[in-house]
Amino acid sequence: MAKATQLINNEVFRAFATYAAIVLLKMMLMSLITAYFRLTRKAFVNPEDTASFGKEESAKKYLRTDPDVERARRGHLNDLENIVPFVGIGLLYALSGPELSSALLHFRIFTGARIFHTFAYLIPLPQPGRGLSWAVGYAVTFSMAYNVLKAAWLL
Amino acid sequence: MAKATQLINNEVFRAFATYAAIVLLKMMLMSLITAYFRLTRKAFVNPEDTASFGKEESAKKYLRTDPDVERARRGHLNDLENIVPFVGIGLLYALSGPELSSALLHFRIFTGARIFHTFAYLIPLPQPGRGLSWAVGYAVTFSMAYNVLKAAWLL
Amino acid sequence: MAKATQLINNEVFRAFATYAAIVLLKMMLMSLITAYFRLTRKAFVNPEDTASFGKEESAKKYLRTDPDVERARRGHLNDLENIVPFVGIGLLYALSGPELSSALLHFRIFTGARIFHTFAYLIPLPQPGRGLSWAVGYAVTFSMAYNVLKAAWLL
Repeated sequence: MAKATQLINNEVFRAFATYAAIVLLKMMLMSLITAYFRLTRKAFVNPEDTASFGKEESAKKYLRTDPDVERARRGHLNDLENIVPFVGIGLLYALSGPELSSALLHFRIFTGARIFHTFAYLIPLPQPGRGLSWAVGYAVTFSMAYNVLKAAWLL
Repeated sequence: MAKATQLINNEVFRAFATYAAIVLLKMMLMSLITAYFRLTRKAFVNPEDTASFGKEESAKKYLRTDPDVERARRGHLNDLENIVPFVGIGLLYALSGPELSSALLHFRIFTGARIFHTFAYLIPLPQPGRGLSWAVGYAVTFSMAYNVLKAAWLL
Repeated sequence: MAKATQLINNEVFRAFATYAAIVLLKMMLMSLITAYFRLTRKAFVNPEDTASFGKEESAKKYLRTDPDVERARRGHLNDLENIVPFVGIGLLYALSGPELSSALLHFRIFTGARIFHTFAYLIPLPQPGRGLSWAVGYAVTFSMAYNVLKAAWLL
C-alpha cells in the first residue's frame, strides 16, 4: 500500500497534482458560467429545461441561442482542447524526472495563461490578448511534450 | 519492471482503474448512439457520408440536423466536460493515499450519477432529474479535488 | 525522488508516454489547422477577432461559418472524443503490466488509425475510409479497457 502513495511524496508530482487540479477546477467552472448565462438570459436548448416557465407554447420562446451563452460554451470547449493535452502530457512530464524548478515554471505559466485566457474570452478583451494567452499555454504544453519524448522515446 | 506494475496491486488504484474504465467506456458509447441516430434518422453532416444514398443531388437532403442526433451529441459533450475532470482529478486522488472506503464512495456515486445522467438526457426525463445527476457528479469531483489539494499542495 | 522516476524506466510506460504524446500533439495540431482555415477563409465567430479587418460594419461580414473551418472543428472534436479515452484507458493499461509487444501493438495501431482518420476527414477521402479508421481506434481502446478491467476489477 505504501508504494502507491509514494508518488504524492515526490515534489514534482505534488506540484503537478496542485496545478492540474487548479486548471481542471477552472475548466469545471465554465459549466457554472454557462448555466448562469442560460438562466439569466433565458436561453435553453432542451425543451424539458423550459418546462417550469409555463405552458409548452409560451416556454418555446426560451429555446434559443444567446451570444453570452455561446461565448461561455466556446471558452469551455477551448479549455477542453487545451487543458486535456496539458493534463495528459503534464502527467507524463512530471513522471519523466524533470527539475522541480523547470516543472514549476511550466505549470505556473500554463495555469496563468489559461486563467488569463478565460477572462480575455468572457470580458472580452481586444485581440491579441486572447490569442497570445492561448499561444503561451500551447507553447508550454509543446515544451513538456518535447521533454517527455526526449526522456521516454520508445516507438 | 516489477515496480511499475505495483500500482495495480494497490486496492485504491484498482478501484479507480475499474470505475475510470467504466465511465470512459460509457462516454465512448455515446459515439455509437450518435451514429445509430444518424443512420436511422438519416441526418448527416459530411457530404461524403451520404454518397451511398444515391446521386449527389438526391443525397443532399440528408445533410441536416435531427433533434435526436443533437441530443445524443449534447450528452456526449456533457460527458467530455465532466468525465475528463473526474479521470484527471480521480487519478491524482487515488495516488494521494485515501482510505479505500472513501475512494469507493466517491467513485461509485460519480459513476452512478453519470449513468443516470445519460438516461435522463436521452429519454428525456423531466427536470430536475438530469440537473441533479449532473450536480452530484460535479460535487464528487470537487470533493476529490479538495482532497488532492489538501494532500499535494505545492504551488 | 528516485521512486517517482522509476516509471519512466519501465518499457511499457515509455512506449505509452511516446504514443500518448504523439496523439495528443496530433490533436493539438487541429487547433492550428482550424486557425489556418479561419484566417485564409476569413470566417470568424468572435466580433473581437475581426476588429483588425476594418470598421465594425465592414468587418461584420467575416462573422460567418465556413465548410473547411467546420470540417476541421469536427475533426478536432472527434479527436477529443476518441483520444481522451485512449490516453485515460491506455495509462491504466500501461500500469496493468501487459507484455511490451502487446502494448506496442495496441499503441501503434491506435496512433496509425487516428493519423489516417485526420487525413480521411480533412481531404476528405470517400467513405468508409474515415469510418473504418475510427472503428479501428475504437476497437483498440475497447481491447485495452477489457485488459484493464481483467487486471484491476475491484467494484
